[in-house]
Amino acid sequence: MSGPGPSAPAGLGEFGRIERYLRPLAAGFPGALGLNDDAALVDVPLGHQLVVTTDAMVAGVHFLPSDPPADIAHKLLAVNLSDLAAKGATPLAYSLVTGLPKDTPDSWLAAFAAGLGEGQARWGIHLAGGDSVSTAGPMNLTISALGLVPTGRMVRRAGARPGDLVFVSGCIGDGVLGLMLALGTLERPDSVGGGDYLLSRLRRPEPRLPLAPVLLAHASAAADVSDGLVADVGHIASASGVRVVIDSATVPVSDPALGLLAEWPGLLAEMLTGGDDYEVVFTAPADHRNAILAAAASAGVPVTAIGRVEVGEGVSVLDRAGQPLSLGKSGWQHF
Amino acid sequence: MSGPGPSAPAGLGEFGRIERYLRPLAAGFPGALGLNDDAALVDVPLGHQLVVTTDAMVAGVHFLPSDPPADIAHKLLAVNLSDLAAKGATPLAYSLVTGLPKDTPDSWLAAFAAGLGEGQARWGIHLAGGDSVSTAGPMNLTISALGLVPTGRMVRRAGARPGDLVFVSGCIGDGVLGLMLALGTLERPDSVGGGDYLLSRLRRPEPRLPLAPVLLAHASAAADVSDGLVADVGHIASASGVRVVIDSATVPVSDPALGLLAEWPGLLAEMLTGGDDYEVVFTAPADHRNAILAAAASAGVPVTAIGRVEVGEGVSVLDRAGQPLSLGKSGWQHF
Repeated sequence: MSGPGPSAPAGLGEFGRIERYLRPLAAGFPGALGLNDDAALVDVPLGHQLVVTTDAMVAGVHFLPSDPPADIAHKLLAVNLSDLAAKGATPLAYSLVTGLPKDTPDSWLAAFAAGLGEGQARWGIHLAGGDSVSTAGPMNLTISALGLVPTGRMVRRAGARPGDLVFVSGCIGDGVLGLMLALGTLERPDSVGGGDYLLSRLRRPEPRLPLAPVLLAHASAAADVSDGLVADVGHIASASGVRVVIDSATVPVSDPALGLLAEWPGLLAEMLTGGDDYEVVFTAPADHRNAILAAAASAGVPVTAIGRVEVGEGVSVLDRAGQPLSLGKSGWQHF
Repeated sequence: MSGPGPSAPAGLGEFGRIERYLRPLAAGFPGALGLNDDAALVDVPLGHQLVVTTDAMVAGVHFLPSDPPADIAHKLLAVNLSDLAAKGATPLAYSLVTGLPKDTPDSWLAAFAAGLGEGQARWGIHLAGGDSVSTAGPMNLTISALGLVPTGRMVRRAGARPGDLVFVSGCIGDGVLGLMLALGTLERPDSVGGGDYLLSRLRRPEPRLPLAPVLLAHASAAADVSDGLVADVGHIASASGVRVVIDSATVPVSDPALGLLAEWPGLLAEMLTGGDDYEVVFTAPADHRNAILAAAASAGVPVTAIGRVEVGEGVSVLDRAGQPLSLGKSGWQHF
């Protein structure tokens, strides 16, 4: 939790901030050594492997600088835990890198840390270490999350087989609709609370951790839906060397999204490709279908079959009539 | 190795760059899954614990945007491995987050990746995963490095005991002198190659990995010298609940630094507090002294005794006459 750089004390100072706001977040993980060392120490129990995932967020790209700090903290932790969930892993600990503009007040970090604390309590994970630096540019935040899986059981993108069905958790498209509302490129829906719901799905996604054991038991391949359903299904198709067919009419959509779709049917393409859903898309043998739906229901996670795996390559999205839908793009790229 | 964000294709594009420049760096680590999944899979052998350390670098703070990309890559990897070395750990794998301005050309990433590749070959570590994002601000780069130690043996900051001696590897002060040369706040020394040497110590520090087994066998506490010798010794003193006394006349100094010191004796304070040395400072029982010097010499790492541990708190730096040196500051802070 330290590093060289120009000195510009303000408020509590770097070490004061770590002491006050970050150290309490590490109290539940002995290997964090109270953030009082150069490194954290992690035990991996016998019969387990460590799953490591890293996601960064930049102000102006992944969140708005004016977003509430607790929302930013929630999302940063959630998007990392979403990757662990999709791999069938149980959260263990995380490291945090904060790249903050020099004029960031202590109160911002206080609220950000409070948001991390809520997420930690909710998802059973603790801070293990990290670094804090200053930047002359937009705020950038990175979490590297560690999870555990039974040895040899991590659910990969590779593994989908022809004949498998494709399933997805929750609803698809809320994230991009929330983003369009936040950016003002979409009118708020008339339905009471509809806009709030979509914005909360954007800002406070819920990683599907309860689904992890269901994936370990049944899934042949999985990914979280961060780049967009079509792009993430594409990752599975490409890694598995198969073709995936999605029946768009079966893709689950929330009521607020349905309301918007009724008015602007063109939004469907955005919803299927827009990303930021943090649901899990996975494949599994067709004869596991009933067991999966039952186990997911027991875990409190809605799961829907949305397509099938075939011999071939790429992703095909079909409309109600079984004709290929034309989608302008398949997902986000940064460059 | 992906994430949502606005699309701005240029050159190879995000996935093309990962494919071309980063994937080859992951070829030697099977758990990287070819950077083709949402997470990496790490095995921790029986009887070992994982050591996790994270260091971020920001353009304009930790390096100059005009620095050669291979130098930046070298330093980013080296500063993380320096932490592993100081903990007695053996490098295993690392994850990388690149936050690049949108106009960063493919050629920059090509040279940066080549630098990482050289470092990997030199230090026996492989890329396991990460994320790539774009930023409207200065380039920011983060590595989270994973290492292995025998269970219960990690060398901590806590552990120094009154009566222990204090040792340091290599020479202290080259890093800050190199920085002053790079910034033009210090004249180039007359000695042939002296300035080049100091600049190379700043830009291409060598993590003291060969010292790790010596530390495991002998050290009671250790830290790498990144914030500055006095600050990092202070971390050990504070974590261990002891006082450390440094005899400044015994602190090893390189010939080019000695030349500058002869002309400007006031530089000593900068050298003792300036940071960016990436040497290891450690404590060990006094009766291990000969064994330590012999083992370090066998490992090819110069090691010098520079002080002692006493009952009390804080760090005292004594001059040649045994009087306390006055130092303006003890190390860098970001805020």
